[in-house]
Amino acid sequence: MSFIKNAWYIAAWSSEITDKPLARTLGGDPVVIYRDAEGKAAVLQDRCCHRGAPLSLGEVVPMGLQCNYHGMVFGTDGKCVHIPGQDRIPSKACVRAYPVVERDETLWIWLGDPATADPTQILDYPFNSNHRNWPHKYGLMQVAGHYMHVIDNLMDLTHLGFVHKNTIGSGASKAYVDALMKSERTPTGVRFTRWMLNHEPPATYVKAVGFKGKVDRWQEFEFVAPGNVVQFTGATDAGTGAYDQNKRDGGFALRILHSVTPETDTSCHYFFVPAHGYRQDEPEATEQLFDEIYRTFLEDKQFIEKQQERLTRWPDPQVDMISDGARVQARRYVAERLAQEANATDSRPVAA
Amino acid sequence: MSFIKNAWYIAAWSSEITDKPLARTLGGDPVVIYRDAEGKAAVLQDRCCHRGAPLSLGEVVPMGLQCNYHGMVFGTDGKCVHIPGQDRIPSKACVRAYPVVERDETLWIWLGDPATADPTQILDYPFNSNHRNWPHKYGLMQVAGHYMHVIDNLMDLTHLGFVHKNTIGSGASKAYVDALMKSERTPTGVRFTRWMLNHEPPATYVKAVGFKGKVDRWQEFEFVAPGNVVQFTGATDAGTGAYDQNKRDGGFALRILHSVTPETDTSCHYFFVPAHGYRQDEPEATEQLFDEIYRTFLEDKQFIEKQQERLTRWPDPQVDMISDGARVQARRYVAERLAQEANATDSRPVAA
Amino acid sequence: MSFIKNAWYIAAWSSEITDKPLARTLGGDPVVIYRDAEGKAAVLQDRCCHRGAPLSLGEVVPMGLQCNYHGMVFGTDGKCVHIPGQDRIPSKACVRAYPVVERDETLWIWLGDPATADPTQILDYPFNSNHRNWPHKYGLMQVAGHYMHVIDNLMDLTHLGFVHKNTIGSGASKAYVDALMKSERTPTGVRFTRWMLNHEPPATYVKAVGFKGKVDRWQEFEFVAPGNVVQFTGATDAGTGAYDQNKRDGGFALRILHSVTPETDTSCHYFFVPAHGYRQDEPEATEQLFDEIYRTFLEDKQFIEKQQERLTRWPDPQVDMISDGARVQARRYVAERLAQEANATDSRPVAA
Repeated sequence: MSFIKNAWYIAAWSSEITDKPLARTLGGDPVVIYRDAEGKAAVLQDRCCHRGAPLSLGEVVPMGLQCNYHGMVFGTDGKCVHIPGQDRIPSKACVRAYPVVERDETLWIWLGDPATADPTQILDYPFNSNHRNWPHKYGLMQVAGHYMHVIDNLMDLTHLGFVHKNTIGSGASKAYVDALMKSERTPTGVRFTRWMLNHEPPATYVKAVGFKGKVDRWQEFEFVAPGNVVQFTGATDAGTGAYDQNKRDGGFALRILHSVTPETDTSCHYFFVPAHGYRQDEPEATEQLFDEIYRTFLEDKQFIEKQQERLTRWPDPQVDMISDGARVQARRYVAERLAQEANATDSRPVAA
Repeated sequence: MSFIKNAWYIAAWSSEITDKPLARTLGGDPVVIYRDAEGKAAVLQDRCCHRGAPLSLGEVVPMGLQCNYHGMVFGTDGKCVHIPGQDRIPSKACVRAYPVVERDETLWIWLGDPATADPTQILDYPFNSNHRNWPHKYGLMQVAGHYMHVIDNLMDLTHLGFVHKNTIGSGASKAYVDALMKSERTPTGVRFTRWMLNHEPPATYVKAVGFKGKVDRWQEFEFVAPGNVVQFTGATDAGTGAYDQNKRDGGFALRILHSVTPETDTSCHYFFVPAHGYRQDEPEATEQLFDEIYRTFLEDKQFIEKQQERLTRWPDPQVDMISDGARVQARRYVAERLAQEANATDSRPVAA
Repeated sequence: MSFIKNAWYIAAWSSEITDKPLARTLGGDPVVIYRDAEGKAAVLQDRCCHRGAPLSLGEVVPMGLQCNYHGMVFGTDGKCVHIPGQDRIPSKACVRAYPVVERDETLWIWLGDPATADPTQILDYPFNSNHRNWPHKYGLMQVAGHYMHVIDNLMDLTHLGFVHKNTIGSGASKAYVDALMKSERTPTGVRFTRWMLNHEPPATYVKAVGFKGKVDRWQEFEFVAPGNVVQFTGATDAGTGAYDQNKRDGGFALRILHSVTPETDTSCHYFFVPAHGYRQDEPEATEQLFDEIYRTFLEDKQFIEKQQERLTRWPDPQVDMISDGARVQARRYVAERLAQEANATDSRPVAA
């Protein structure tokens, strides 16, 4: 499969993980995600080493995760800790355990070589733990397309005026194309910001924070490899320094973490969490925002899935447009990381 | 795929083609069929050259067919005519456009080399434009079998007494086998005519035209490569010259155009249009005829689809019967055309 | 496909076979099963040698099985006996006919070389003909797993306490693991018997035969290659000689024939027939037993199908447990038979 392996991806939202094993395919492989009797989250290969039954049909028992075919029990490190009717446990009785870190209500998984798993590389996203200032709700959508097509979608917002022309992109196509655009490489990916200065605020912004006149709006999207796009969208009264002095408090503000994890070569898990920095005491604002985002993403999903079908049939040609700038940079960054991984693998010492 | 490429097939009935793009797979390739703002019908490859999204998710705008992912617009010749936010349009921004001709309420498509597309080779079938004398209704059925199995079905009518034993073939098996049979090669395929002289008219014929006594009946089927079977069925009072003097007016008459277009190697689009040369002023006669034909074709469809399953599993052996004569000639004609195409490709000059 | 070919498998229960042709896939090949006008059961390749249509869409006529596409008729030996409209029948007009034997309400089929079909090798199971002493009902379940996974399931009963923990294995896991176990090779496979001596009888046993105190219970499972497991389960009052003197009458007794026939490499037909040697005059006892067994097998089916998915993805490793003893012996027996078949094929004389 074509994806960066030595990297952290979201395996699940913390709220999904209980003592009822959860089956999911990550990076092409079926895994089981669960929380053991001590509350520790774990991800194991979803295949018992005895007769191949899925551990996701099993159950959490005090000793660990029990296969419900013939009763082998495994610890969170993948080692078998119990076999019914026998005392000796063969050392080869084990299943693959993935490095995981649970942080900020999110379970991150390392899909590559466990020896190189480095928790300092996990995306820092403290807003998931900050329900007071950034109320939010967790979302997950299956998309039948390569995960990079979702990243592409987010890194070229000109699609808003077309894909979302009846929803959030209504009448927006010219405004989006004409926006001020800043795009830059970062150590972990690409960031672009679109500014629309002295602009009529959208009705939803007015409703949310009571703007009286025009606003300066921004949309900031940062692709953080391998699969994250950190979105920060907002507006303040026009000319009050948002653009030139980075004064972005006191207006409308919206953060969305988009994080896409490969499922197979032609499908992915699209994790997303919209958080609002306004009307924080109104739970219905959280629901409204989530519902709007969800409907919007369903429109994207339709295009990405059909795009995947066509690209599977005909990968080429792909003719870039000027607005593809940030998207192309993101693709280049990923290509470099993939090349690094391939080189690292090739240059391993070989027995003479 | 195994089909004659340099030939005209039906892409759609004219009545199917509007400014709402229609997705269809023809000759193995997804295409989009639409009518532009000037009313011109066109068929393009259903894949935007930008990011691979299907153009069938797009919409007709004044300039052409707009991809609704990021807004590229294409003309009926497949050339990009507009890219949002940029003035220059790269010459490689284009998609494949197929030669098409709309004639007699039918859109014909050339699936092979555009340079060789010759409209004079299109089947002449003026009855589709003649609603007064030949009232008709258009039909289309997907069949999960190679298109030649539908041609086979039509070129061996002994199946009527078995496949259609409970419908149009009721009690017919002996009559069909004993009929007078004439079969001949034509420049474009094979024609056969079955004559049943001095025969009791079927109840539907009597009801249609009020026969008082016996009739001379004919069934004429002409296979016109690559995918058409032109059917002319009728009856006149016995001994009034239909058989020996070609006097076929004044009785019962029915024309069906069967035209089959390959979708994939194991599926096809079965276009059909039954027209009646009797009770022309009774719209319900058109409906009754269509409904009967449709039910009959569903019986054929069941056999052809299961036949395809078996032939996919076991292509051989196939033991011919005497009644396979016309069918075998049609197959031979197609094999010759396929061999010609293969030779033409092989003998193209190669750069030294 | 990986299965023993020169062997008898169940093709159908006799009660399934009528003059309405039945389509089934056996050993990877579509076949048609029917009873001809004389009542003789037959199995033919489900593909007419004329145009490949399935004979299972045909019908039984006085002469034989008629293909309902163009009317060829075949005898139970697979030879064409009639072609509409012609007198001569070519000798190559025939389809594969399988050796079959109908015995004890069961149709057995030989999937290998017809020349070696030996009816004396058919499993002797007279209980199917003995409705008075062994009332029973026939069952059939499709399982999307290799047929040997069903055999595996039956040859390692430690799964009862896990897969069936909410049904027949309720609270049983320790008892099953601790049972006395006897396992032995037989000329045609492997037999194991589990004894639970001086044991509380299950509630269903008490209800069935009115036990007042403890019982001696046995579970006898004999794998008879290629696909049968003959189960004999029962109990008598504790200490009355069941275990040491083979006195097994007068208590609770249950026989189940399990017989699994390969459909494809990853699916099978699971034929089963539970018979009760108690309350023989109560038809509702037959129904109750059947329903309980059926529900239990659905639990097995879920595991086997998911196990197949995982083993298709990752065939290895498979780490055996001590309780796999009988199962491993059955696998070894089958591997020996498969090796014999492969050798026999390899050592055939080759033309110089």
